[in-house]
Amino acid sequence: MFKDITPLLSDGEAFRWVADALADRLSDTSADRIVGIEARGLILGAAVAYRLGLGFVPFRKPGKLPAITHSVSYRLEYGEAALEAPADALEPGQRALIVDDVLATGGTAVAAVDLVESLGGVVAGMGFLLELSFLDGRSKLVGNYPVISLFCPEGNQERSPEEDR
Amino acid sequence: MFKDITPLLSDGEAFRWVADALADRLSDTSADRIVGIEARGLILGAAVAYRLGLGFVPFRKPGKLPAITHSVSYRLEYGEAALEAPADALEPGQRALIVDDVLATGGTAVAAVDLVESLGGVVAGMGFLLELSFLDGRSKLVGNYPVISLFCPEGNQERSPEEDR
Repeated sequence: MFKDITPLLSDGEAFRWVADALADRLSDTSADRIVGIEARGLILGAAVAYRLGLGFVPFRKPGKLPAITHSVSYRLEYGEAALEAPADALEPGQRALIVDDVLATGGTAVAAVDLVESLGGVVAGMGFLLELSFLDGRSKLVGNYPVISLFCPEGNQERSPEEDR
Repeated sequence: MFKDITPLLSDGEAFRWVADALADRLSDTSADRIVGIEARGLILGAAVAYRLGLGFVPFRKPGKLPAITHSVSYRLEYGEAALEAPADALEPGQRALIVDDVLATGGTAVAAVDLVESLGGVVAGMGFLLELSFLDGRSKLVGNYPVISLFCPEGNQERSPEEDR
């Protein structure tokens, strides 16, 4: 399943609206860094980071980082998702907002949470452009942080993980 | 050769300074869209697009786009660089600012120029965070558009292609 957000990104007003909406709804999370997940999370996350005046940390797909960089990787048991970052990408206790384009089954999102924590950081919140709520990825995000999505076919984008239980 | 710009991105003030500097120095190019080259050009380009209020078009490495999307691809003769974009990524005559992290030998930059033109667009300018001028990539960018870089070990970042001849 592929949701093409390219037309939205290519419209200047829409792109700014999306970045502003994600930033505004995550602005009270006392975040230190924005984490963007390759590839479309890099685009959205960078704009959110700019808007909030925060630094940006890319979480890459495996094998993209140079050999000289230490990396921490996470792999789901069934091999579907893996993300990497330099071992010093976050300082201990830094609060990271994770941004990606789509929340689907939650596999990548859970990998990103685990990678933030592996790096010594704390997940401050998660923001998605689109949530495919019928795939129930939100149920896998059980930490004490807000999870927001701007568009959700079934209208559950405002609920926190606690409310979902 | 790998120049790691990750520490710069992860600093909020530095990230904003870089995006502002690129945006300000390319703001008089009458651009319609920002093109960012995967992967780090997505990060920088998205922040520049946000700053300028322009839409964003990602140029992807091969094989990342869904099969249902028409694509235009470019491959250098020696097979080193290839970029893809949906065939409707730019409207005819749209002016695109190409943003990437590093200008090195110019292979990727030339591919991006050719892809913009293949899509029916016009290159309005090119902006790089870092230029490795000893690799002379700038000499391959011979069109009528400004090429700027924020950091250049040999200090030639202000020259236009014409001045280089």
